[in-house]
Amino acid sequence: MKFGTTWQTSGPLWTISLVVDRLGVPVLGWWPRKVVVPEMLRQQMATILDAWGMSKEHAAITLDYLMYADMHGFDSHGCAMLLHYHRALQAGHLTMTPKIELVRESQTTALLDGGGGLGHVPADMAMRLAAAKCRDTGLGAVAVRNSGHFGAAGSYALLAAQSGLIGIATTDTAEPAVVPTRGVEAKLGTNPIAFAAPAVRNEPFLLDMATSTVPIGRLIEAWRNGDSIPVGWALDANGYPVTNPRRAAALRRLTPLGAHKGYGLATAMQILATLLSGTTERVGHFFLALDPRQFRDGFPEDVDDLMNDLRTTKPLDSSQPVLVAGDPERAAYAERSNSGIPLSRAVVEDIRAVCHGSGAPFLL
Amino acid sequence: MKFGTTWQTSGPLWTISLVVDRLGVPVLGWWPRKVVVPEMLRQQMATILDAWGMSKEHAAITLDYLMYADMHGFDSHGCAMLLHYHRALQAGHLTMTPKIELVRESQTTALLDGGGGLGHVPADMAMRLAAAKCRDTGLGAVAVRNSGHFGAAGSYALLAAQSGLIGIATTDTAEPAVVPTRGVEAKLGTNPIAFAAPAVRNEPFLLDMATSTVPIGRLIEAWRNGDSIPVGWALDANGYPVTNPRRAAALRRLTPLGAHKGYGLATAMQILATLLSGTTERVGHFFLALDPRQFRDGFPEDVDDLMNDLRTTKPLDSSQPVLVAGDPERAAYAERSNSGIPLSRAVVEDIRAVCHGSGAPFLL
Repeated sequence: MKFGTTWQTSGPLWTISLVVDRLGVPVLGWWPRKVVVPEMLRQQMATILDAWGMSKEHAAITLDYLMYADMHGFDSHGCAMLLHYHRALQAGHLTMTPKIELVRESQTTALLDGGGGLGHVPADMAMRLAAAKCRDTGLGAVAVRNSGHFGAAGSYALLAAQSGLIGIATTDTAEPAVVPTRGVEAKLGTNPIAFAAPAVRNEPFLLDMATSTVPIGRLIEAWRNGDSIPVGWALDANGYPVTNPRRAAALRRLTPLGAHKGYGLATAMQILATLLSGTTERVGHFFLALDPRQFRDGFPEDVDDLMNDLRTTKPLDSSQPVLVAGDPERAAYAERSNSGIPLSRAVVEDIRAVCHGSGAPFLL
Repeated sequence: MKFGTTWQTSGPLWTISLVVDRLGVPVLGWWPRKVVVPEMLRQQMATILDAWGMSKEHAAITLDYLMYADMHGFDSHGCAMLLHYHRALQAGHLTMTPKIELVRESQTTALLDGGGGLGHVPADMAMRLAAAKCRDTGLGAVAVRNSGHFGAAGSYALLAAQSGLIGIATTDTAEPAVVPTRGVEAKLGTNPIAFAAPAVRNEPFLLDMATSTVPIGRLIEAWRNGDSIPVGWALDANGYPVTNPRRAAALRRLTPLGAHKGYGLATAMQILATLLSGTTERVGHFFLALDPRQFRDGFPEDVDDLMNDLRTTKPLDSSQPVLVAGDPERAAYAERSNSGIPLSRAVVEDIRAVCHGSGAPFLL
């Protein structure tokens, strides 16, 4: 929903809204977008996972992570992935009944094999296992190989923080999409960094960022919304900037965040997610949990103080207060809990196609 | 030394060189810079540490880390810090005979107190302790409180990688220098991220980056070299860009890397270095070591393959091949081992002042 919307009505494939802009001028807008009630989207996705043959147990976990993405504004990591999953399933690159295995384990570490399925279930298992090891020993790290797309990395880091631990999560991506500094070919994934720390009075500190300037999903989102993208996000095969999001998404040549630093961070995350897990095809992940109580008491209270201190930084523009990592996602969650999840027409049509292809009823 | 220098002569406070530029035009240049033999700089710094009353044992370690910075091109983190250390010592904010204590310890974690001295010695102890715990259990993490400036974060991450471990190191800084996104006040340190991973045929992968667009030292370096700084590195109290490096260094309002992402990374590193260690004044650090052999065999060989694959990325400009994190530092090391360390006139004069103030002989 747009900021400042004062009146809105939605049809199956559109939203009409009357927005009063900053100068007080009313603007009538038409968006090819549909706003859905969260429970309805969850139900729709449940019918699809069921039609794909996923077990109820795996579906419950997978739905939680898909809904996390759609509720927290990671629009490219939730239901917008369904068509991609469907195509991978059809092509035989993905199974919905993976055998997830514990390959190797020590007191503090473990390696899981995702069994060639989606990443949400093995990632959830891996972070829970890292947290359990961490509660025993102070630290836990689990790598996952032969896995798939796992949604928003932050949701796994958050899992650790919700039980009082510092959580770190990363993943590689199935195909390269990031161009090393000085290069013209994509060699790395958009390999996100997620870091969460528990607080007491605040929700956890939660950083969840791609190490590319923007993730691939942002290009697809811009394309679906009919927007162009700024110079500096994506390159063509000669290293020139691309501003057409459809072309950029097809070319898959994203710039790393802040040039060589993002390139270095993307490589570091690739080392953790791909090389530590020994992923040779498909996707690898890495999770770490650290118990602050092993170091000192009063840590979560100090996280509160730091977050509050940052939020009270004197702002450049008093209408735009300083935020802390996790605040925009929490604002999206509050907004969407109240007003529903805005889906672009393209995503709704993708889901309709998935329903048609998988035999699930279309509910949106 | 400048790229393409064909002839050079140095006096005590200057370097004259004849450079043949890319178009083949010879350019006669004068730099207020002195090139010193590494062993001479080490000896000079040794006499200063001795004059300050540092023990031989602590001095040997401190010198290694100071020289690491000066040899690897971290010009703002080595001998250029001596005047700053001297002033802190004179003001009573720093001791050269700290009592470094183990405050708390578990099988995988520890908390050290730096005793109010420089950071190099406690940081070295902390990473060695993390590595020892890691060899026993697969993971080790050590935080340090009440410490000081520790030089280049990468040198500690490298320590872990040199014994076959993945190493992570970070630190906060004594005073805030980074402005949160949307804000106009500095609230965070330039909190670096260092990440090193062992290889077999290559030197380790080594990322060492400030989470600000540039570190404070880069401003001081630009100032000492008489350069201006680009728009986007630093802000004034109203949020406007500052291009005068002296003014920028005095204002201490750096931008975070890539806006909100660097702001989030700087906060995450502050949580690890400051809050986990319980640092309330002075400086805190954090170190983590992870043993890849707990996950699988063949990891360092795969790091080799990844580094080689990245270096052979098709370049935008064939005269500028794609590098891997750590390559520029290794090139600086090779260059300086051969041709000496170029010091700006301002740094040489600072060292002269430190010698005068501490009673050490001036050797440069």
